[in-house]
Amino acid sequence: MSNSQLIYGLHAVQSLLKRHPDRVLELRLTERRDDPRMRAIEALAREHGTKVVRVDAQELQQALGGVTHQGIAADIVPLAPWSEDDLIGALTEARNPLVLALDGVQDPHNLGACLRTADACGALAVVVPKDRAAHLTPVVRKVAAGAAESVPLVTVTNLVRTLKLLKQAQLWVTGADAEASKTATEVDFTGGTVLVLGAEGGGLRQLTRQTCDYMVRLPQLGSVESLNVSVAAGMLLYEVVRQRNNP
Amino acid sequence: MSNSQLIYGLHAVQSLLKRHPDRVLELRLTERRDDPRMRAIEALAREHGTKVVRVDAQELQQALGGVTHQGIAADIVPLAPWSEDDLIGALTEARNPLVLALDGVQDPHNLGACLRTADACGALAVVVPKDRAAHLTPVVRKVAAGAAESVPLVTVTNLVRTLKLLKQAQLWVTGADAEASKTATEVDFTGGTVLVLGAEGGGLRQLTRQTCDYMVRLPQLGSVESLNVSVAAGMLLYEVVRQRNNP
Repeated sequence: MSNSQLIYGLHAVQSLLKRHPDRVLELRLTERRDDPRMRAIEALAREHGTKVVRVDAQELQQALGGVTHQGIAADIVPLAPWSEDDLIGALTEARNPLVLALDGVQDPHNLGACLRTADACGALAVVVPKDRAAHLTPVVRKVAAGAAESVPLVTVTNLVRTLKLLKQAQLWVTGADAEASKTATEVDFTGGTVLVLGAEGGGLRQLTRQTCDYMVRLPQLGSVESLNVSVAAGMLLYEVVRQRNNP
Repeated sequence: MSNSQLIYGLHAVQSLLKRHPDRVLELRLTERRDDPRMRAIEALAREHGTKVVRVDAQELQQALGGVTHQGIAADIVPLAPWSEDDLIGALTEARNPLVLALDGVQDPHNLGACLRTADACGALAVVVPKDRAAHLTPVVRKVAAGAAESVPLVTVTNLVRTLKLLKQAQLWVTGADAEASKTATEVDFTGGTVLVLGAEGGGLRQLTRQTCDYMVRLPQLGSVESLNVSVAAGMLLYEVVRQRNNP
């Protein structure tokens, strides 16, 4: 069966080889590039007994489309999706876990961009409801630029129920809303944190909103109605990282 | 001639009627929605002698595509593009001007998202080089969600020259780079600020980088190589607003 995925780029491949060598099936290197970092990755792969093949740079480019692959790709076992139980179970091992929840985001580009940013900001997982929301598709994986293989997507039947379970596990739930009286800087994100962002246009659903411990607004100094949801998620995730780095 | 543009949404239409009533050619209201805010906008339009028409909600939806128009749209005179001279001239009237420069961003979705966020964060203008970069197209306008009508796009022949002119005008130029030693919180953005973001994948060009006063990195705690450029722009613009609100 060929249920494998292709990831690319020095950082993404090296990172997976370090964290989950068992998931790397084959390392593909172009013949052109040969530098210390590439050699270190190759050594790491050989250490784990991973198959290493030399490929043509143009062929690799064709397989990947218009991305910057840096002469390296890997055939990997896709990240298994998490259930709600997996998520709750993982909380006990995480220190100050950060979870991103998307309440009905339907645009695959936005879901992909959110996964990519969640990865960059150290989020444990991204939670989406089963209905009326985007799920993992090839487009989402492509936009996520490898993050779909590092940040688990948790699809849940009832988002409000999951948020309540996260609250029981001592995480604080903060929702984004243009009309909120607090700014993100007024909420403490240094402990376990869930960020909830609403659908494009509609925002958070009433029940989701009521489940949040805090509601915060993001900059809205201009004339447009709202921010793009993946940009709004990026700002909030940035604020979490900022607070944790500057306590 | 019909070089006009259609904008939509209570906030965007009200904002343009307040700031530039002369640019609003016709206000279109659906018959369905009638509330205090809508009545206030209609009164504002009539005050300025703007033509007000009632339209069918479905027709308006068809004209706009899959957006949340809130029962209101306006036919407007598009924002005239700025020249480099317009930009430098506008600096004298602005207090602590904020300018976003994109060094070779080619994806129209990213340019549109950057315009939308620049508007939300109070940027004076967005600067792009003439060559090898996305420009104002219908896709960009749609993704910008009205911001293309409020934030001027400045297309310049030589981005480095423009950055030098902005430095001469007492603005500090900060570029984003994954390898930078400083984080964004270590740079003071409370004065006149230019933020420079590079192309998807390639980052800033060498000459652009050398022109920056500061280089800063953004969160990169995970396995993906970099952030999406519009998300990175969102984080930096957020940081500027945060610092200005919490001096």
